[in-house]
Amino acid sequence: MCSNCDYTIHSRHHHFGWDNTFQPAQIVAPGSTIEFECLDSSGGQLTAGSTVADVEALDFGKINPVTGPIFVEGAEPGDALKITIEAFKPSGFGWTANIPGFGLLADDFKDPALTIWKYDPTTLEPALFGKEGRVPLKPFAGTIGCAPAEAGHHSVVPPRRMGGNLDIRDLSAGTVLYLPVEVAGALFSVGDTHAAQGDGEVCGTAIESPMNTVLTLDLVKDARLQMPRFTTAGPVTRHLDAKGYEVTTGIGPDLMAGAKMAVAQMVDLLSARYQMDPVDAYMLVSTCGDLRISEIVDMPNWVVSFYFPRCVFE
Amino acid sequence: MCSNCDYTIHSRHHHFGWDNTFQPAQIVAPGSTIEFECLDSSGGQLTAGSTVADVEALDFGKINPVTGPIFVEGAEPGDALKITIEAFKPSGFGWTANIPGFGLLADDFKDPALTIWKYDPTTLEPALFGKEGRVPLKPFAGTIGCAPAEAGHHSVVPPRRMGGNLDIRDLSAGTVLYLPVEVAGALFSVGDTHAAQGDGEVCGTAIESPMNTVLTLDLVKDARLQMPRFTTAGPVTRHLDAKGYEVTTGIGPDLMAGAKMAVAQMVDLLSARYQMDPVDAYMLVSTCGDLRISEIVDMPNWVVSFYFPRCVFE
Repeated sequence: MCSNCDYTIHSRHHHFGWDNTFQPAQIVAPGSTIEFECLDSSGGQLTAGSTVADVEALDFGKINPVTGPIFVEGAEPGDALKITIEAFKPSGFGWTANIPGFGLLADDFKDPALTIWKYDPTTLEPALFGKEGRVPLKPFAGTIGCAPAEAGHHSVVPPRRMGGNLDIRDLSAGTVLYLPVEVAGALFSVGDTHAAQGDGEVCGTAIESPMNTVLTLDLVKDARLQMPRFTTAGPVTRHLDAKGYEVTTGIGPDLMAGAKMAVAQMVDLLSARYQMDPVDAYMLVSTCGDLRISEIVDMPNWVVSFYFPRCVFE
Repeated sequence: MCSNCDYTIHSRHHHFGWDNTFQPAQIVAPGSTIEFECLDSSGGQLTAGSTVADVEALDFGKINPVTGPIFVEGAEPGDALKITIEAFKPSGFGWTANIPGFGLLADDFKDPALTIWKYDPTTLEPALFGKEGRVPLKPFAGTIGCAPAEAGHHSVVPPRRMGGNLDIRDLSAGTVLYLPVEVAGALFSVGDTHAAQGDGEVCGTAIESPMNTVLTLDLVKDARLQMPRFTTAGPVTRHLDAKGYEVTTGIGPDLMAGAKMAVAQMVDLLSARYQMDPVDAYMLVSTCGDLRISEIVDMPNWVVSFYFPRCVFE
């Protein structure tokens, strides 16, 4: 499927959670370019024909499968894995769900909800939302990481210093990501691909979409990285910013409370303005609204701002 | 000074802190356009000839003077003050300081430090930082707000729901800001002008710079706003994003700790790469680096990312 890749790792080589005893799907030399078939974060439990009943029936033991692991020859604890994000080959299908108990406003949105998306995988034109909305797309892998040194099986949900479920929207094509290596061979895996997401992924899901991911894996010996870092090739919000933003704010001594306040007000604003069910507005802003910390120094009150791109409706 | 303004409010009409018994500098009708002479946040204590000794000697009773207040006829509690940010007339002088006890990394940077900036107030070309750095400029007012309903004198430092020391970088020319009104007449004031700032204002100061600010004040009756909100006229980061970003991350269950981690790693990265004193890197990133919340839903670990624009050195 990849004309200039050294390997293709098929999606049957997927695993749930992280465990440094998982057997490698492939052993590769540094500098190898690899195409990964990535399942969506439901592992195929949700499809284009799914309804909200399928959200209620989700088996959480099969959430966020990742394809791998890849053993990179010569990788040792203390090194950094250098991941050049080459390309994505999207599928054209996606879903966004409100999953009870999960998401920034879980206390306000207790019922399951589901949006099914269809988009053009070739042109990547903005995806239609309801009658009027158009959500710009920028594919990336939500879960991208190496195995932890700590023994045992670890949940895939929380991200960690060696990566994992980072859900960083700008880990898109052209970005170079550096991850701390904690075990011999790094044991790298990737999955949970998204067609679009806003910073924060506020409802807990993005446009969850199966797609192939092409990456080049290399090493930086003895990099002694504390946390993941990355370099973007260029601007990161130009798919969103042409018409400017509507912005709501949350002000107070707790950043989490400020974020909830800002997002709740945006949900109120959009659902009133466009006659949307609030849970639809909540899912929409998760795919394209960005949480920023405007100030974090004016004691004791911080400002968290939520930026909704006006291009979605204008 | 303003050819099409209804009023000019001179900087002698400044006050420290917020108090709803302050006498109005001017009573205006809704729709009035006003030019405000704004002092810098030191109230003139720091000048182009200042040294670090002047930072140590700062009188904090004279910090963040704001020009006003303006009584807007017809404004009542429950209304929103609609502020159209028309223009800034920058001075060409600015300063950035590390003030002990203040700033996100106050525990790491305990000694005072000062950077003096000179920029072209007409072209607003990027301001030089050291030998190699060029910081893009986008002027805005750091402190912009209405008087609180609560009686008494209130510190200017923390922002509140009726605005104040918001330090939101995108309150720049073209933006329309809505602030909750808590007292009759709104009693609006503005100051603390910045020539540039990153989201977060991480060292506690931006490019602090005196400048005139032209605003149109109008009313939205009975708007029942919970917190400030604003609409930007267009993109907000295009002055920064052309060359992409270096990004560091902080991962864990506390957003504040994540933000500190991300900024500390960026300071380490830049000071090593460009042979800068760490405190200089800290002041630099405060003027142009952006704090974003990449994900806030993958329990129990959140990802805070710090975006440094590569155009500063490339």
